[in-house]
Amino acid sequence: MSAPVQAKFPMTAGFNFAIEANSDGARAGVLTTPRGVIQTPAFMPVGTQGTVKGLTPDQIKTTGTQIVLSNTYHLAVRPGVDTVRTLGGLHKVMGWEGPILTDSGGFQVFSLGHRNKISEHGVEFRNHVDGSPLLLTPESVLDIQARLGSTIAMILDECPAGGVSRDEVAKAVVRTHRWALRAHEHRSRLDLFEPMAVFGIMQGGVHEDLRKESAQQLLEIPFDAYAVGGVSVGEGRDALLSTIGLSAPLLPFDRPRYLMGVGGLEEFMIAVDQGIDMFDCVIPTRNARNASLFLGDGSSLNMKNARHKQDPNPVEEDCDCLACTRYSRGTLHHLYQRKEILAYTLGSIHNLSVFHRFLRKARTAVLDGVWEDFRDGFLSRLSLRSG
Amino acid sequence: MSAPVQAKFPMTAGFNFAIEANSDGARAGVLTTPRGVIQTPAFMPVGTQGTVKGLTPDQIKTTGTQIVLSNTYHLAVRPGVDTVRTLGGLHKVMGWEGPILTDSGGFQVFSLGHRNKISEHGVEFRNHVDGSPLLLTPESVLDIQARLGSTIAMILDECPAGGVSRDEVAKAVVRTHRWALRAHEHRSRLDLFEPMAVFGIMQGGVHEDLRKESAQQLLEIPFDAYAVGGVSVGEGRDALLSTIGLSAPLLPFDRPRYLMGVGGLEEFMIAVDQGIDMFDCVIPTRNARNASLFLGDGSSLNMKNARHKQDPNPVEEDCDCLACTRYSRGTLHHLYQRKEILAYTLGSIHNLSVFHRFLRKARTAVLDGVWEDFRDGFLSRLSLRSG
Repeated sequence: MSAPVQAKFPMTAGFNFAIEANSDGARAGVLTTPRGVIQTPAFMPVGTQGTVKGLTPDQIKTTGTQIVLSNTYHLAVRPGVDTVRTLGGLHKVMGWEGPILTDSGGFQVFSLGHRNKISEHGVEFRNHVDGSPLLLTPESVLDIQARLGSTIAMILDECPAGGVSRDEVAKAVVRTHRWALRAHEHRSRLDLFEPMAVFGIMQGGVHEDLRKESAQQLLEIPFDAYAVGGVSVGEGRDALLSTIGLSAPLLPFDRPRYLMGVGGLEEFMIAVDQGIDMFDCVIPTRNARNASLFLGDGSSLNMKNARHKQDPNPVEEDCDCLACTRYSRGTLHHLYQRKEILAYTLGSIHNLSVFHRFLRKARTAVLDGVWEDFRDGFLSRLSLRSG
Repeated sequence: MSAPVQAKFPMTAGFNFAIEANSDGARAGVLTTPRGVIQTPAFMPVGTQGTVKGLTPDQIKTTGTQIVLSNTYHLAVRPGVDTVRTLGGLHKVMGWEGPILTDSGGFQVFSLGHRNKISEHGVEFRNHVDGSPLLLTPESVLDIQARLGSTIAMILDECPAGGVSRDEVAKAVVRTHRWALRAHEHRSRLDLFEPMAVFGIMQGGVHEDLRKESAQQLLEIPFDAYAVGGVSVGEGRDALLSTIGLSAPLLPFDRPRYLMGVGGLEEFMIAVDQGIDMFDCVIPTRNARNASLFLGDGSSLNMKNARHKQDPNPVEEDCDCLACTRYSRGTLHHLYQRKEILAYTLGSIHNLSVFHRFLRKARTAVLDGVWEDFRDGFLSRLSLRSG
């Protein structure tokens, strides 16, 4: 095992990352931002349109959330960046005082936009709502995120679709690198409304050599931290897990490593074991709206199933969330059947609580020096169940 | 002015009503129940299907809610009374520890049911969901409410549609009286899961003599308190307000008077002035879901209106609700435009807060001996605005 990579540049003033303990690859860290402290590993709920769907800021916090993610693309389309600024910035709009990480918008452009024109300059496209043109460049996405008032901004990367040729992935690595250089150059020209860190994004698909190339190039640019991109684009589960393993250790040991767009207890376990510190995913809130509630062992319940109708027990006995402490499976079944808003709220609170609790337990295991037992116990129960 | 009517019978053990102050007809009262104390005048939000739509119990409480109303008919259809009982009763299902008043289900039968057969025995009908038969009798509606675990149950009354002949209304008064006698008779046979008060309901439409007849008959039956029924069935606004005036003083001074199905600041003002103490209405939550938010002067805002898009001000400057303290009109406009669940939650919190705050102010005005100023000031501002 080679010596861990160290970051070559300091973090932006007001930001800091400290590792309190580590075991194998797994780490218990503390990411400090001007908007608050994040104990890692940490999951970031997704607030697509200026709200984590169905939840008030207090409810978001109660689930254990320390930082939320918001989508630059959706906000740029509606209500628009100028409107967000006029209303006092994204924190004010969301009613959320804590840290906010915003994505660059690039991922949505590749997946939602149509008539995209990708060039060296950037991505020109028509938005998915009214077809209005929007130009995302390495510079403009940082301008937008600065105007939103993001705490952590992501650079524009080129994220090739799953299944494309090695050649395409290699080209995306090169372009992502050139865009990363431009993003860094542009930082000195940003009109900031509050301190903002910028994270670089590594690409390279499932190819070890391309991941290495991407990391080596990226680490020469003074970003605050680095993310693993391009892992949730449909290469399949095995590819996802192996890509995490070959990507995470390439990023600086002394900086938070963010695995973009991934969430799930098994994924958390494997990624944390490889040294990942931050996650985001729409699954806990989206699944909650579809009546799928997580259990702490990695399984889930379909609350619309008639077997829950008269069940007076909570979704999960040892869960301290509002849904489990105040409601029975029977009530949740009823609320989901009746499409009551409260079902979506309670389900989202529960699913986020399960995610956050799992990562807190992982953190504690690292701090207590029992990470390997924790990991192996969970994974063996998981394989017993699925086997 | 004749001497105030007094109740002839004591209240059920565990229940009490005390009047702390009164001025003209208006009173500041305290209704004590085994589930908690209600300072009157009080508004009851409606939890149709086991939830006040979009709100958690804590949010309901934060708006100033002291007691909620739940609909027997809807619960009897889905999830069913047996299911509610199996799940631990209505308080457990709703996650609400405070007092719950349930209606008899009669009103929904008259308005939602089809193929109703009204006879002396009761109302036989097919429910609006799957056409299953359900029989509501003066006895069965109390059995159902007892099984739900209601704190305050309402008797079955015959509520004639608006616009029917005086003769029809007179017949409904007579039948309502016979049903009230049977309801009272049945109380000794109820299988109670917790202490339950029972309120009688006066009918008589817009006719002063029929209201008097109904009240005189009703007051001979030992109910815990008495409600004014049949005022929200489409006789028009003037009829509504005048019926309140001729009905409320007929009911015992020393018991809470409940005006069924009415809500709105002007209605509150006129009804409280006539001695009404309790209200319920779906308007604050329903309107909130339709982007109509109340202001304290009795007017309202359509939050979907484009003029709010970039407005950084709160809905109401001096409102201490979550929507007003944490969000701007611009954000609420955005959330309503995007049909975000959070809009419905915040809007409901605001509208309920406006209702409750208004009644708290009315109560304080009575306690402080400035009721007439409070009333006249509000009504003159209202007529200035609408004039």
